[in-house]
Amino acid sequence: MNIVSYLTQKKKIVDRALDACLKKPAETPPELSRAMRYSALAGGKRLRPILCMAAAEVVGGREKDVLPVACALELIHTHSLIYDDLPCMDDDDYRRGKLTCHKKFGEATAVLAGDALLVKAFELLSDMMRKKEDGISADRRLHAVNEIASAIGDRGLCAGQIVDLASEGKKISTRTLKYIHVHKTAALIVASVRCGALLGGANEKQLKALTKYAECTGLAFQIQDDVLDVLGDEKKLGKKAGQDEKMGKNTYPKLFGIEASKKKATALKNEAVASLRAFDKKAEPLRGIAEFFVRRDF
Amino acid sequence: MNIVSYLTQKKKIVDRALDACLKKPAETPPELSRAMRYSALAGGKRLRPILCMAAAEVVGGREKDVLPVACALELIHTHSLIYDDLPCMDDDDYRRGKLTCHKKFGEATAVLAGDALLVKAFELLSDMMRKKEDGISADRRLHAVNEIASAIGDRGLCAGQIVDLASEGKKISTRTLKYIHVHKTAALIVASVRCGALLGGANEKQLKALTKYAECTGLAFQIQDDVLDVLGDEKKLGKKAGQDEKMGKNTYPKLFGIEASKKKATALKNEAVASLRAFDKKAEPLRGIAEFFVRRDF
Repeated sequence: MNIVSYLTQKKKIVDRALDACLKKPAETPPELSRAMRYSALAGGKRLRPILCMAAAEVVGGREKDVLPVACALELIHTHSLIYDDLPCMDDDDYRRGKLTCHKKFGEATAVLAGDALLVKAFELLSDMMRKKEDGISADRRLHAVNEIASAIGDRGLCAGQIVDLASEGKKISTRTLKYIHVHKTAALIVASVRCGALLGGANEKQLKALTKYAECTGLAFQIQDDVLDVLGDEKKLGKKAGQDEKMGKNTYPKLFGIEASKKKATALKNEAVASLRAFDKKAEPLRGIAEFFVRRDF
Repeated sequence: MNIVSYLTQKKKIVDRALDACLKKPAETPPELSRAMRYSALAGGKRLRPILCMAAAEVVGGREKDVLPVACALELIHTHSLIYDDLPCMDDDDYRRGKLTCHKKFGEATAVLAGDALLVKAFELLSDMMRKKEDGISADRRLHAVNEIASAIGDRGLCAGQIVDLASEGKKISTRTLKYIHVHKTAALIVASVRCGALLGGANEKQLKALTKYAECTGLAFQIQDDVLDVLGDEKKLGKKAGQDEKMGKNTYPKLFGIEASKKKATALKNEAVASLRAFDKKAEPLRGIAEFFVRRDF
């Protein structure tokens, strides 16, 4: 399959849904809504929502039924990017080729917009009205809320971010580097795949295989991100390259060199693909995404 | 009833439960856990959790069944206080008589701890394991998640905060002032009461009466807060008085004067108490809390 055209097509579906779920509610202050939309509709690859939808389909679920959950995952990802860019974090001026949220709207608005996006995600996840349409039980829906919350809090994304910041400019162990990557990046990717699978109706065995897939491919994604920060083209990336080096960030290339990092990413990709062996042709998108993660140049 | 001893007793229950749900998970970085616990266990009045528990009991629910939800509400409140105090917001050095989170741990850690507390709240709200213990259905639990998310996002707390910040130093209308108070303060108080009532098994009529109670008492609470910022004793408040004036904040005392503000708070309290008329003696705590809100000096 042509994974790039698959991703392009799915991205359109996600973008349209995100636009709809970020329509300004009447009582929301225009500035808050503008900042939320600015960051969330700034043109990311929408990989987490696409993984969620692909995981649902591989176990027989329907894309449209998990679309709100897929959007919630992207809103959470956007939240984490806004916060990553803040002056007290990585202090970045550009993201996806545009000014970062705090550069555009000021720091207070950026913090509140990030907050509101995170909360909007939980609003979407808990939307009771959906139940009649998609037949997904409240039990499964609540399970998805719990999966996602666990992935982004003090045992997930926030934990990875704090260790990442504390490690800047220091020499760290391979174990600590893996901790950062697993928590800061892979956790939300794993939650995306697991929630898609759960809501799509996965059984225990399927869920286990897909979790393994997500863990491997999530880590491979971050290693490739580190590699691109060294080798990548700023125009394609939409952000400055060489930032990790400049910030004294610990990365795979820094600890092991570029070649070993590429090898590690490829090995993880192979492991991810192998974990899908029990699935038929419906798993082609997931296989393609795993390949794309380590081959992409943006 | 002696409302102060009631509140003291309930606060102990909430404090113990908060301490338990903020036990450091093995994989959480110590610094993150310390910052979360520092702010959440800094000794607030725990009014939102207590309102939640009292609302559950007034409709026949059990306090212990809603205790996790009550804790979630306090974690969300703590999150909003940490963010309120940030340099880009109100830039406060003290809160509840202690250094604010960012003064104690630095800004990045404060932002992440605030984030992690908010997420922990949703983890608690979606904890599937509780179902067996308390018999509260996934449907009701999901409804509570949705109520709370709606109250704190772009139609709730975040909206109130952004309008509050944008109004500093400007002359605003009574309508805008009410918008700020309703969204920034009353929304979470209303959600606290409504979630307690919902999970406690309230019928439509009961829920309506309790919502009215919460709207009135939530607004009265904020007016009294404004009054205390003018008249209050810094030692009792645990924070500097006169900050609203200094920041150019729009408050009831500023727009209407102290006496008219006190009268407004009392009128709202009376309305709150009147809305409880259909409830029997079990509503004494809620009546007492409404009185306490406008009489308190801390």
